[in-house]
Amino acid sequence: MPAIAFLECSRCHAHVSAETPQTLCPVCPDSPAGILYVRYDFSALAGTRPDDVIARDTAGVPWSGMWRYRSVLPDVPPVTLGEGWTPMLHSKRYAGVWLKEEGTNPTGTFKARGLGLAVTLAHHYGITKIAIPSAGNAAGALAAYAAAAGIEAHIFMPADVPFANYVEAIAYGAKVTLVNGLISDCARIVSERKEQEGWFDISTLKEPFRVEGKKTMGYELVEQLGWQYPDAVFYPTGGGVGMIGMWKAFEELEELGWVKPGRRPRMIAVQSTGCAPVARAFEQGASVSEAWRDAATFASGLRVPKPYGDAIILDIVRKSEGTALALTDEQILASILDWARNEGIFLSPEGAAATAAYDHLLQTGFLKPEDKVVLFNTGAGLKYTDVTAEAMKLSRPTAEPAMK
Amino acid sequence: MPAIAFLECSRCHAHVSAETPQTLCPVCPDSPAGILYVRYDFSALAGTRPDDVIARDTAGVPWSGMWRYRSVLPDVPPVTLGEGWTPMLHSKRYAGVWLKEEGTNPTGTFKARGLGLAVTLAHHYGITKIAIPSAGNAAGALAAYAAAAGIEAHIFMPADVPFANYVEAIAYGAKVTLVNGLISDCARIVSERKEQEGWFDISTLKEPFRVEGKKTMGYELVEQLGWQYPDAVFYPTGGGVGMIGMWKAFEELEELGWVKPGRRPRMIAVQSTGCAPVARAFEQGASVSEAWRDAATFASGLRVPKPYGDAIILDIVRKSEGTALALTDEQILASILDWARNEGIFLSPEGAAATAAYDHLLQTGFLKPEDKVVLFNTGAGLKYTDVTAEAMKLSRPTAEPAMK
Repeated sequence: MPAIAFLECSRCHAHVSAETPQTLCPVCPDSPAGILYVRYDFSALAGTRPDDVIARDTAGVPWSGMWRYRSVLPDVPPVTLGEGWTPMLHSKRYAGVWLKEEGTNPTGTFKARGLGLAVTLAHHYGITKIAIPSAGNAAGALAAYAAAAGIEAHIFMPADVPFANYVEAIAYGAKVTLVNGLISDCARIVSERKEQEGWFDISTLKEPFRVEGKKTMGYELVEQLGWQYPDAVFYPTGGGVGMIGMWKAFEELEELGWVKPGRRPRMIAVQSTGCAPVARAFEQGASVSEAWRDAATFASGLRVPKPYGDAIILDIVRKSEGTALALTDEQILASILDWARNEGIFLSPEGAAATAAYDHLLQTGFLKPEDKVVLFNTGAGLKYTDVTAEAMKLSRPTAEPAMK
Repeated sequence: MPAIAFLECSRCHAHVSAETPQTLCPVCPDSPAGILYVRYDFSALAGTRPDDVIARDTAGVPWSGMWRYRSVLPDVPPVTLGEGWTPMLHSKRYAGVWLKEEGTNPTGTFKARGLGLAVTLAHHYGITKIAIPSAGNAAGALAAYAAAAGIEAHIFMPADVPFANYVEAIAYGAKVTLVNGLISDCARIVSERKEQEGWFDISTLKEPFRVEGKKTMGYELVEQLGWQYPDAVFYPTGGGVGMIGMWKAFEELEELGWVKPGRRPRMIAVQSTGCAPVARAFEQGASVSEAWRDAATFASGLRVPKPYGDAIILDIVRKSEGTALALTDEQILASILDWARNEGIFLSPEGAAATAAYDHLLQTGFLKPEDKVVLFNTGAGLKYTDVTAEAMKLSRPTAEPAMK
């Protein structure tokens, strides 16, 4: 594993030490302050092929989790629950479509990667209390990894998160506060109280390691396609950390010489029409988003009125010749049922925004059927049974008697 | 992949052809009729080591799913959703304890292995309608694989199954009937209607391939421990298919020479005091179980009043020098919270029966702390949020206002 050389600001490019915990760029002249990217000295990996350095277990089997990439992750002991190396499922109907099934992660979502690494570093730094505002899934992941690491977790979530998010956080022993508002309201509460309470703020992009954990999705999708890029990646975009992390992975893969040269995938940011700040900014040609008013969608992970990394996300979408678009809750629900009934895969609403977006971009001709695409299902449909059942107008029916 | 040589009856040892679909032994003089084991001609595998024959993807990476063992599975095209090769997590507290996390399977439980293979064969045979009685999780798995294979699924479940089981089955497009009764009542309904309706009955042990899929758990746990047996395996026992399948795997592994010689693991059947037919029969020295009256436990997968394979399960437990025991719902809930808060793992109630059983057998001295044990968490805690929340007396609390 490489030691971290330094942290680099996304805006002013200052170099910041990783010897102590960092949040946003501490010297940034810009506002909002830039986020910090983890930079390594990769010289020891020069000339390697990935097969040489993929981590193996004691029996010699390649590690089936994101720590298979420990050669490009921080050199600290992992707090791990088996996250990553999720299935890449080939669609039974579309020859060009692969579904990256992140629902098999611990706690049922892709959040396990970012929080797994962020808690690993918090543990390394000796942090004892962490706070997070969450649309739901990040809360569950933080609670699990904090429990595994013996760290106190303070969680603030909208009151109407899927019930599973609430139950799991309580089960893991986190201190949970439900808030009548959105993730932005939760973030404000964390920000106001953290100094007095001694909480480390592990909010999206406000510390360097959630991006670093999510970058493993970029390594994985490329490895699972035989170390080649697909033509496009569909990414349900709430905070957008995964898109930022995957783009960082593509940069590193090229620097390492592990990926065959070729055009990077078109990055497609998918949102809900009930909360579409990135899609709106993309359409308007703006470089940052404006806060979305009255955000409302059953794809709870997409209810992020203004992602902190909006400028970075919009830049990636544009320079990759991708696009950003929003689907209605009706389109999302229809795609959940379409994939369940025809592929045997129960998507999260966020994941179904990606599958619905694929259908749409095929219709408009933005993509061709022969284009090879990866659609991210960011969470297990099982985490959303209450909200999905409500969208389906489904309740527990009257039972048939056992005896007639 | 090997062709199937024949199916062998567990009781009369008759050889039955696998050219057409089979259920129970069609020639058995005994009652109840024996179950059918799949037997192969393994001669082509003589002298191989597992590394030589583990299936790899097109990029040469070992297949991360149960089809990595296709060299010991039927030679037909898989209907797969990425099942198997689940994490083997080392406990953070007990040096000798490994948790086999089956909750990362498609549909969130170990049922994906057995139903994945059974539907693969049903598809191979051209079957168009399948029926199943289920305590809940088998229903979800059948519905998913049937959807993937384009087969009609008819599902009968107790009315009080966890809500997730109902929602997923409906989402996958299955025909669902809830029954005011137990799985045994559901089984009777399937049995009464199947001939008229043209349903293939895929009930536990009543066709040969659910055991065959579940046997992959035995191959996996041995491979993940470096092709060695642990000292004991704790298995939450409803229908008990996994225990029967793992024992078959151990027989095959020894026949193939893939496992180092040594004592097979002590097999420990874990139940709930609300439904403990196998534990009671074990204590009483009986060779079969008697139907449990008024079965009731929030570990819904353990509500099987009389498993069809009881005689085989009891035989395995005894000849492995294992044991069978039952835990109360209070002990199960306490173990869910213990593992969530101290290990970061949210167990299913069935899985928590296994962890509670380990604590108990450590206290009694049946096992020593240095014994290497594998505890099966057969499903994701997330599939049980409603029943677990009820057991925890947890409801959605009043939210804090966003503004003060």
